[in-house]
Amino acid sequence: MGDVLRGNLVVAQSGGPTAVINNSVVGVVDEALRHSCIEGVYGSVAGIGGILDENLIDFREEDPRTIRGLRTTPGAGLGTIRLKVRDHHIPRIVEVFKAHDVRYFLYIGGNDSQVTSHDIETLASQEGWEMRVIGIPKTIDNDLPETDHCPGFGSAARYTAITCREIDRDNASLPYVQVVEIMGRDAGFITGAAQLARQDEGDGPHLVILPEAPLDPEAFLEKVKATYEAVGRCVIAASEGVRDQDGNLLAAADKVDAFGNRQLGGVGQMIAQNIEERLGYSARWNKAGNIQRCAAHVMSRTDAEEAYAVGMAGVRAAVEGEHGKMVTLVRESDDPYRCTTGLAPLEAVSGRTREVPREWIAADGLSVTQQFIDYVAPLAGEIPPASVLKRYYIDKKCAPYADPGKKR
Amino acid sequence: MGDVLRGNLVVAQSGGPTAVINNSVVGVVDEALRHSCIEGVYGSVAGIGGILDENLIDFREEDPRTIRGLRTTPGAGLGTIRLKVRDHHIPRIVEVFKAHDVRYFLYIGGNDSQVTSHDIETLASQEGWEMRVIGIPKTIDNDLPETDHCPGFGSAARYTAITCREIDRDNASLPYVQVVEIMGRDAGFITGAAQLARQDEGDGPHLVILPEAPLDPEAFLEKVKATYEAVGRCVIAASEGVRDQDGNLLAAADKVDAFGNRQLGGVGQMIAQNIEERLGYSARWNKAGNIQRCAAHVMSRTDAEEAYAVGMAGVRAAVEGEHGKMVTLVRESDDPYRCTTGLAPLEAVSGRTREVPREWIAADGLSVTQQFIDYVAPLAGEIPPASVLKRYYIDKKCAPYADPGKKR
Repeated sequence: MGDVLRGNLVVAQSGGPTAVINNSVVGVVDEALRHSCIEGVYGSVAGIGGILDENLIDFREEDPRTIRGLRTTPGAGLGTIRLKVRDHHIPRIVEVFKAHDVRYFLYIGGNDSQVTSHDIETLASQEGWEMRVIGIPKTIDNDLPETDHCPGFGSAARYTAITCREIDRDNASLPYVQVVEIMGRDAGFITGAAQLARQDEGDGPHLVILPEAPLDPEAFLEKVKATYEAVGRCVIAASEGVRDQDGNLLAAADKVDAFGNRQLGGVGQMIAQNIEERLGYSARWNKAGNIQRCAAHVMSRTDAEEAYAVGMAGVRAAVEGEHGKMVTLVRESDDPYRCTTGLAPLEAVSGRTREVPREWIAADGLSVTQQFIDYVAPLAGEIPPASVLKRYYIDKKCAPYADPGKKR
Repeated sequence: MGDVLRGNLVVAQSGGPTAVINNSVVGVVDEALRHSCIEGVYGSVAGIGGILDENLIDFREEDPRTIRGLRTTPGAGLGTIRLKVRDHHIPRIVEVFKAHDVRYFLYIGGNDSQVTSHDIETLASQEGWEMRVIGIPKTIDNDLPETDHCPGFGSAARYTAITCREIDRDNASLPYVQVVEIMGRDAGFITGAAQLARQDEGDGPHLVILPEAPLDPEAFLEKVKATYEAVGRCVIAASEGVRDQDGNLLAAADKVDAFGNRQLGGVGQMIAQNIEERLGYSARWNKAGNIQRCAAHVMSRTDAEEAYAVGMAGVRAAVEGEHGKMVTLVRESDDPYRCTTGLAPLEAVSGRTREVPREWIAADGLSVTQQFIDYVAPLAGEIPPASVLKRYYIDKKCAPYADPGKKR
């Protein structure tokens, strides 16, 4: 237990919102209100921008029901910002913290935010301003190191798995090719989670394409053809960040795609179009876009609880004297799933990213392994089962039908 | 009460699947099993194709739990088909029905299916084959006449409203322009339902574009600009079937769009791109595609119940001697919402479609009226509320900040 540090607390949200990011804010606020050493419990409006411009709000003034309601509200309740924080911003941040007697700073964000947290901590310390900075992990992409997984990812994974199971039922009833374009430009964790949708033999998604496994267009088209011939249809989950064998994005703007055609509206559209042109199958594409990161109506309960827990853990750690750390999630067991929180030094986190390990991806690069599934399943939670008729056919009694019209 | 007609029953699904279409199958099966005059309870696999090819399955052989499970499973459990049924198909259908002693045919579908039902009924009667054909309405587009609304629509409306409220929270936390492209090429009912997402003043979707209200590109861009200047952001719900002032689809393939640019990936992308180019705002687009018609995880309970009820009502009517009718939904009151089933002659339904009445759309064509909202609200069910902080700002203590870096 460190010395008691009296003063105010600021919590801020950074980068892209998630379905559960507000749970971390509520976790920070709920825990902060329990400690008498923390006086003002402030929120910064629009991320680091709210500190630079002193747009700080007082959580003690908010209706507790409003705060509780944030736990089921997606997006960043405090607002966020896409600002590349630079060295010259740091002194201003420390100036504002000093002016408002801020001794605790809880910063909810991804990689860039952890770098910022580290820089603030360092400068404040050099200037002799005692404060405790704690990073709270947040990213649907799940690309932070040192933590088993990141709050926000489980809900994105759940949305993707449920949606792909539904699309698979839709596709099974009216067979053709369906491509689902999935978020995560540099890490394929969300895309891999699509495979949770498979319930039985022959279910989709039949092919899953991650940024970590460069795509061979010809081998891929062969596989689509083989799938279509085997099951009469094909569902493909493709990361928006699929790369070609040279490591270039398949669907970068203004370029001829890996299949040799001009790229139009993203990976999903590109793949669908090439399948229509090269294989002659009818193909549709779906790009849920930002819906994937804000689908709170289908949030993973585990994810929401963990997002809340890392917020609380961050405040507890700071009150106990910790600083310069990011809260981590530490998995204790897969089945039954058990997870607790830990701490990692900010310098071990900042500037590093994580990808899906190559050994969690099948050799052909078009599905994920059981190890990946075991990793992601408890984070996404149970995917509602689909009911499929066994189809007991009755005996035929008429001559076979030859449609005199055009071929069906 | 008509004469007792003994024989077998066939139920078939047609056209695009919905989140709740299987509820109608289960409604038919559950009710059919209650009537001793109905012997075989058969399902046709892949719509009318299963009748032409005699691919009929026996529901009495299926595990009742599998049948019950269909009530939460999207897509067409029996399979469906996009086959334009022509005159030459009808004699074969009647031949198969005679061979299998089919006296009851329940056909779940949209406009085209009601035409087919009518044709089958007519030919069977001419050939002296007594049978009772009943149409069961189904379409997410809600474009069937004679019924207050169509099963399938409520769930698509609910998905759209919930998604737009979530996208609005995402957009409020990281402000720019968001376009959501919504299904319904000829009828704007689903797109209009997006407006249910508005909770308070300033909430999105700020603009709603229906196929029924031709778009004036310049007036539209002006409105986007005005919205952005007023609330700092803009969420737009746009039907995939938005039309220009000449009645042409805005995003038809291979054409220069109404803004003068080459059309790329659909309405959403087109609108976002023009906003970026003409107004300089950052704009993103989302096209959930078929996800919209199969999102059973968020189905409207009212819609699911009604889809089940129309299936049951169809069988009851047939057993009581009715034929040549489509089951309708008859709204008895808005608040509290009460609805019952009725019957309309197939000839009054077949070949006719319904659009959003012009008086339910605002004069500028960019929002729907309270009358529309009152119509759709009970069908979609309650949209989970979003919690929004009141933001009680604390006093500033530092000099205003002028970022020495580039303009934020």
